[in-house]
Amino acid sequence: MNAVIEKPIAATNAAPSERALIPFVSVDNMMRLVHRVGLETMLKELAEVIEGNFRRWESFDKTARIPAHSAEGVIELMPTADGDTYGFKYVNGHPRNMRAGLQTVTAFGLLADMHTGYPVMLSEMTMLTALRTAAMSAMAARHLAPKGSKVMAVIGNGAQSEFQAVAFKAILGIEEVRLWDIDPKATEKCARNLRGTGLRVVHCATAEEAIQGAQIITTATADKKLATILTDNMVGAGVHLNAVGGDSPGKTELAKEILLRSDIFVEFPPQTRIEGEIQQLDPDHPVTELWEVVAGRKPGRTGEAQITLFDSVGFAIEDFSALTYVRAKAKETGLYDLLDMIADPDDPRDLFGMLMRAK
Amino acid sequence: MNAVIEKPIAATNAAPSERALIPFVSVDNMMRLVHRVGLETMLKELAEVIEGNFRRWESFDKTARIPAHSAEGVIELMPTADGDTYGFKYVNGHPRNMRAGLQTVTAFGLLADMHTGYPVMLSEMTMLTALRTAAMSAMAARHLAPKGSKVMAVIGNGAQSEFQAVAFKAILGIEEVRLWDIDPKATEKCARNLRGTGLRVVHCATAEEAIQGAQIITTATADKKLATILTDNMVGAGVHLNAVGGDSPGKTELAKEILLRSDIFVEFPPQTRIEGEIQQLDPDHPVTELWEVVAGRKPGRTGEAQITLFDSVGFAIEDFSALTYVRAKAKETGLYDLLDMIADPDDPRDLFGMLMRAK
Repeated sequence: MNAVIEKPIAATNAAPSERALIPFVSVDNMMRLVHRVGLETMLKELAEVIEGNFRRWESFDKTARIPAHSAEGVIELMPTADGDTYGFKYVNGHPRNMRAGLQTVTAFGLLADMHTGYPVMLSEMTMLTALRTAAMSAMAARHLAPKGSKVMAVIGNGAQSEFQAVAFKAILGIEEVRLWDIDPKATEKCARNLRGTGLRVVHCATAEEAIQGAQIITTATADKKLATILTDNMVGAGVHLNAVGGDSPGKTELAKEILLRSDIFVEFPPQTRIEGEIQQLDPDHPVTELWEVVAGRKPGRTGEAQITLFDSVGFAIEDFSALTYVRAKAKETGLYDLLDMIADPDDPRDLFGMLMRAK
Repeated sequence: MNAVIEKPIAATNAAPSERALIPFVSVDNMMRLVHRVGLETMLKELAEVIEGNFRRWESFDKTARIPAHSAEGVIELMPTADGDTYGFKYVNGHPRNMRAGLQTVTAFGLLADMHTGYPVMLSEMTMLTALRTAAMSAMAARHLAPKGSKVMAVIGNGAQSEFQAVAFKAILGIEEVRLWDIDPKATEKCARNLRGTGLRVVHCATAEEAIQGAQIITTATADKKLATILTDNMVGAGVHLNAVGGDSPGKTELAKEILLRSDIFVEFPPQTRIEGEIQQLDPDHPVTELWEVVAGRKPGRTGEAQITLFDSVGFAIEDFSALTYVRAKAKETGLYDLLDMIADPDDPRDLFGMLMRAK
């Protein structure tokens, strides 16, 4: 089967106009795209696109994501726009899904032309979110982690863990990852997947062992509760904390005392104050917006003993960046299908006539 | 070509699990569905589903839609949820599109299972929005218009006009529609499309002529400005106004004086105060929520001389209703495709392994 379906899906009666057919990047095509580009190259390029958009942060419409909570989890919409292009992501977070054999996080996203309102691409984003989250973490660490970091602890060895490890290798030059998870099977899976990546992989029996000698500590656990993956005495001077798992109200990973000893960097404060580790702190606790560091307006790491914390929750501009990147690559490679998603009669006022003629 | 693609779109390497394949209702399948069910039957059934959900209004999460404005128009996300099912619509409004041969309004929507966060249907909604808007108007008029209304004026003969006419015939028993548009070609198109529907269609040379003898006046114009389609002296006692076109900030159709003489019924006040005709009034001007009328808590029409106004802007619960209706009908008829939209590895923590095995 060809990657590109020449005949639009399910459009038979009348040929829809070009604008009515929306390029769609399926899971299968996303995976092909990653392998066509190369995983490490793609992570690097994603980090660059994200960094470029963080540099022009002020040109985006920004809003905290719009959540719908249920007992089991949350469904969120994350829109943003830069005046020319509009993008949004649909994403869920259902920590108990894993027990039912389902993904904790699934996602898809869309780009549209703001001048016409017509969608220009629909894409899977479960895979893409894993890639952009890892690229984002590594981009932040490039500004915040100790220079020459070679060792990273990875606490929580679930779906995000390998992406983090490979992104930090590709973008920061990390050589060793020290893995720990409450479930040893997760660690085995992570270690197995990282074989052949060129990383030195160390299984650890405890979180304490994992952080030994690490300049960077990544936490990526998924429980929907106020957890304490790292306690105060575990975190020494000079490390960079990359806290990925705390990303919704009531879901944190770090002891409050660690936060009080750290310089905290965030994506979009109104969202992070609700969802991030800093939900444990006073609403006016000082934090630095990462885009200001990227744009050269504020310092990142300032000293050897400093503990830096990237309180990552994921922001719409990162998804926008990932979608625009994939749109360009999909065009280049032809790795997309066409969806008959927009009704577009020849006479725009004649939607009814289009319907009647289809009889 | 069969309506149902047995082989999922673009999923070749590994068979995705059932949950990972999202039923998709294309424009073509939506049109087939309308004809399979029958246009008038579908409008009636849509009105019933919407009415049922208005009756249980309090069981829904409600939020004003989330807009992204540009010089040319607006893109909006409209989410809602009832604890079990989540739905949202993407919709744009770009009045100038028509001049470029594009639809003013295009839309698509999604339903998801709140217990897992997994999408369960993606659907075109340009056609479906036209249908649900007309069904909604007629459902509201059933509670508000004079009993035995037979004549309706339709001011604005664009893409929404025929759907309104047919819905009011099917649901209220309207026999005559009196058409007027600033562009005579739009009226010609509307009249041509309504041939064979059983409606008596009268072309009118002015708005004044159109409203003669009409018990119901529908306004459905699309200019993004504060327009005055109806002036105060044009609207006599006892009519029902179905104002469909005023639906975003700075976009209204009726003279303020008419509003002050009317009893006003709205969908969701926090949204209508921003987007509806009542944006012209004080923020505390009394309005009745239509769901309270539907649920029997508040009266609809109370007297013969009363002017009732349904200040329609469209609300997420109407789209939710339309999507759940289409989901059931698509299942019944098989009129859908399957999209490879959700990455769903056998081991949910092994997204990376799924990616690597696809190489």
